[in-house]
Amino acid sequence: MNTMATKKPTWVVEKERQKRAADAQTVWLFGIHAVRDALLNPARELLHLIVTKNAADRLADEIAKAGITPEISDPRRFSAPLDPGSVHQGAALEVKPLKWPSLRDIAIDAGSRGRLLFLDRVTDPHNVGAILRSAEVLGAAAVVATQRNAAPETGALAKTASGALERQPYVRIRNLADAMEEVKALGYIVLGLEGETEQTLEQVIATTLARGPRPIALVLGAEGPGLRDKTKATCDALMRINSADAFGSLNVSNAAALALYASLRDTSA
Amino acid sequence: MNTMATKKPTWVVEKERQKRAADAQTVWLFGIHAVRDALLNPARELLHLIVTKNAADRLADEIAKAGITPEISDPRRFSAPLDPGSVHQGAALEVKPLKWPSLRDIAIDAGSRGRLLFLDRVTDPHNVGAILRSAEVLGAAAVVATQRNAAPETGALAKTASGALERQPYVRIRNLADAMEEVKALGYIVLGLEGETEQTLEQVIATTLARGPRPIALVLGAEGPGLRDKTKATCDALMRINSADAFGSLNVSNAAALALYASLRDTSA
Repeated sequence: MNTMATKKPTWVVEKERQKRAADAQTVWLFGIHAVRDALLNPARELLHLIVTKNAADRLADEIAKAGITPEISDPRRFSAPLDPGSVHQGAALEVKPLKWPSLRDIAIDAGSRGRLLFLDRVTDPHNVGAILRSAEVLGAAAVVATQRNAAPETGALAKTASGALERQPYVRIRNLADAMEEVKALGYIVLGLEGETEQTLEQVIATTLARGPRPIALVLGAEGPGLRDKTKATCDALMRINSADAFGSLNVSNAAALALYASLRDTSA
Repeated sequence: MNTMATKKPTWVVEKERQKRAADAQTVWLFGIHAVRDALLNPARELLHLIVTKNAADRLADEIAKAGITPEISDPRRFSAPLDPGSVHQGAALEVKPLKWPSLRDIAIDAGSRGRLLFLDRVTDPHNVGAILRSAEVLGAAAVVATQRNAAPETGALAKTASGALERQPYVRIRNLADAMEEVKALGYIVLGLEGETEQTLEQVIATTLARGPRPIALVLGAEGPGLRDKTKATCDALMRINSADAFGSLNVSNAAALALYASLRDTSA
């Protein structure tokens, strides 16, 4: 008997390992605002709530609605496992990461005016938090980032996202170029933001939308390194944000907001 | 003899006190990028440079150009008086705050397409740093904030501003409403960003620019409290950024970038 036949292939073992790791992953949200939004989100799996007496009073309605029994903690030795310096305001909530539909389903549902934001190695949680806020307000269907080398769904990200993490799909995929190809196959035009390129944002958006609405995916890299070569090569076009002088550059969340705004404004024109 | 006659009036004493305080004020910039930009800025008054041996090598050209003699510090006990947790990369530079022309002079010089950004109690240095970057890239003539209740020119602000603090006028005035009135008298239209108002950014900008270019001042409040009543009352019009849903709101630096972008785009159309 060949024992190899009963052994699982390496890729199956790896996939199962990743699934177990994902199942075991939990996030500690903190701060009154972030905890309140999560308590009110029916899609959130709530695991454990730690609050001071004072925070319990402030969150009384939300705690009752969520039907969770909080652990009351002494404010002088707040017992939640948070990073030192976390401004928790006496409230911490352990949750499961949200489960969003697949990128494919979201991209299809978004329709002909759909917008997606792809992030290439943007690891700063404050930037990603601000990007989630802008994506929600401006109406992007999803923010898409890789499982590795991206800002994980943490309490710090949730706090900067100011509630947007509960509502704005933040979809993690394995490989950025593959995901870009996937939405291209669905009809999306994939446009990369890049400082050193000839065409401006306005020129490329105008060309893209010249014959009517098109779904668009915008791709942004981390400040400094920018887009990786493979990412650039996978874009349909590259474009730069026009600068009034030779020196400055935008913070990545501001670049994302501007590009998204410009791409939506021409649609309605 | 009346001794009162020789005594200075209270307002003169106060003005002199403020001038002495301003003269005594210095800022410790830190981080390779911020220190390099300051060393290369001929308008910066440089007081004291502390670097590790390694940072001295990296900054050798800039140190030579600036003609400053650095104090070499042991990296294990870096001797600059910085907040703990400051990512100084072995470089810290004590400087005087930059002296910008008066708001009046800047506003006049900016001409008929001039743009100003007024900040009403925006105190977070990371937000103001990002706003300075956007102001520089998009070409605002100045970012204007009050002397009190605003983000001071600190090392943390300089680091987030990523060089923009050296180049982008950040003008501190005594009273926001007075400064708004001052630029209105020069022909500026003063537009306030406000979540709870009827007209959108696009509507107000289109109306403002319907008969050609106009200089515009945009006013933004802190997240949460928003614009103060007096500030709102001093605006020519209020406008909101259209939101795709009922919940989210933009980070203040993203709101500033979008409003500035929208106000400039219609001018060139």
